[in-house]
Amino acid sequence: MTSLIACQGNQKESLFVPLRPALLLGKREPAAMAMQPLKVYADRRSQPSRAIIIFCRANRIDFDEVTVDLFKAQHLTPEFKSKINPMGQVPAIVDGRFKLFESHAILRYLASVFPGVPDHWYPADLFTRAKIESILDWHHSNLRRGAVTFVLNTVLGPSLGLPTSPEAAKEGEKLLVRSLRTIEYVWLKGDAKFLNGNPQPSIADLSLVCEIMQLEFVGDDRRDRILGPHEKIRTWIENVKKATSPHFEEVHELVFKVKAQLSSAPHLKTASKL
Amino acid sequence: MTSLIACQGNQKESLFVPLRPALLLGKREPAAMAMQPLKVYADRRSQPSRAIIIFCRANRIDFDEVTVDLFKAQHLTPEFKSKINPMGQVPAIVDGRFKLFESHAILRYLASVFPGVPDHWYPADLFTRAKIESILDWHHSNLRRGAVTFVLNTVLGPSLGLPTSPEAAKEGEKLLVRSLRTIEYVWLKGDAKFLNGNPQPSIADLSLVCEIMQLEFVGDDRRDRILGPHEKIRTWIENVKKATSPHFEEVHELVFKVKAQLSSAPHLKTASKL
Repeated sequence: MTSLIACQGNQKESLFVPLRPALLLGKREPAAMAMQPLKVYADRRSQPSRAIIIFCRANRIDFDEVTVDLFKAQHLTPEFKSKINPMGQVPAIVDGRFKLFESHAILRYLASVFPGVPDHWYPADLFTRAKIESILDWHHSNLRRGAVTFVLNTVLGPSLGLPTSPEAAKEGEKLLVRSLRTIEYVWLKGDAKFLNGNPQPSIADLSLVCEIMQLEFVGDDRRDRILGPHEKIRTWIENVKKATSPHFEEVHELVFKVKAQLSSAPHLKTASKL
Repeated sequence: MTSLIACQGNQKESLFVPLRPALLLGKREPAAMAMQPLKVYADRRSQPSRAIIIFCRANRIDFDEVTVDLFKAQHLTPEFKSKINPMGQVPAIVDGRFKLFESHAILRYLASVFPGVPDHWYPADLFTRAKIESILDWHHSNLRRGAVTFVLNTVLGPSLGLPTSPEAAKEGEKLLVRSLRTIEYVWLKGDAKFLNGNPQPSIADLSLVCEIMQLEFVGDDRRDRILGPHEKIRTWIENVKKATSPHFEEVHELVFKVKAQLSSAPHLKTASKL
């Protein structure tokens, strides 16, 4: 069903890095890790898939990327649903005998189980961590729901065989814009470089910025209309990009390829007029 | 703005219970805890509010419950939004200087920071925990979205000053039913007593069951139509109820009072015909 191993994660510098005391219990044993690399089932056109891949690359987690082509509905095959993810979605991971889906759960797991992941991604300090959890939870019904509704109902729906609705696109845009405003005023207030004023990015920064990058699909005009008034958001996107460079740019290459295809193929954007 | 301290959490049996090694870093100091009880801002008609209150009661966490009346829009006052939760939602907590919103983040925080919370609620084992995280994340865009859309667009919307739509109610019911099926076939398969076949409940069991209890508002006929075909779900609800008794029943008393009011006041259920 899936075959392409598009990229191999980098080798670790050392398998014997110090472990964080708060997370000792579940850490993988280096031997097991070397024998069975993590498998990441992903489509880079999916924003949570990109978050997982960038996270693995930036943290030198050795992994095999297995492309599950959403445009070919490979995520909906009985094989994928029975063997990898019963929800029929990407990303999903298989780590030895352990299977997991839902991107935030995967990010938490990777940050907790793989040695050598810097603490700032998912802090051991429970107060800092709780604030990050709060953003991750908020994301689902706000930024994600707004962005997904908007993008599916403008350009991506037809490619995925989904119906589109201009009303739904409008509703999505409203929620998306409200969410951007919230991020700016609540979590990026003052001169915050990352969410909550943290000096380095967390898994919440990565997840939310990958979501916003989905706006590339809808074309420059609409992207600029939405992001234009939000300077802090744009600066924050750049901060996350820099902190995970060059992986961020590499993993987003496919997004820009698809964007170019969409803008040169009018039949692919039949629902693009709002 | 808010005043009612409707219930006081039980006193702890002992403040000096053994701490779980994996969570030592952030544990509250007993002295600070005794001086400033946790404040829980909640409305028991809200399902995530009930989950937090039941969790605190079942785990003997000392807390003051501050009622924020959603039907009087107290959650939307500038005072509540500036001092407690900028999102204008319940539940929210204030724990000394620390403020937090989003119910799943609050449940994780309470389970991690308060001494004496049994491990099964939020297991230190990272594999068991990751599976629970996966359910919590899935909940937002599936069971919660379905149930909230259905309940708001049938009976609760008018009381909250929200417009209702029969089409939205139908869409909500579809997603709700699909979500119940998923829970049954993925997480309650075999003779699972709790989600993932865990022998005792986790914060995911509590959160999801409180969501389903929201169906009491829509009346027995509709509740039975939806839950009728799902024997495993009904057994699981009973298991969570028993595991948290008598707190579960006590905290749900208001739900049954509102249900009785709704069924005897036809003007409150103008949108109830699907």
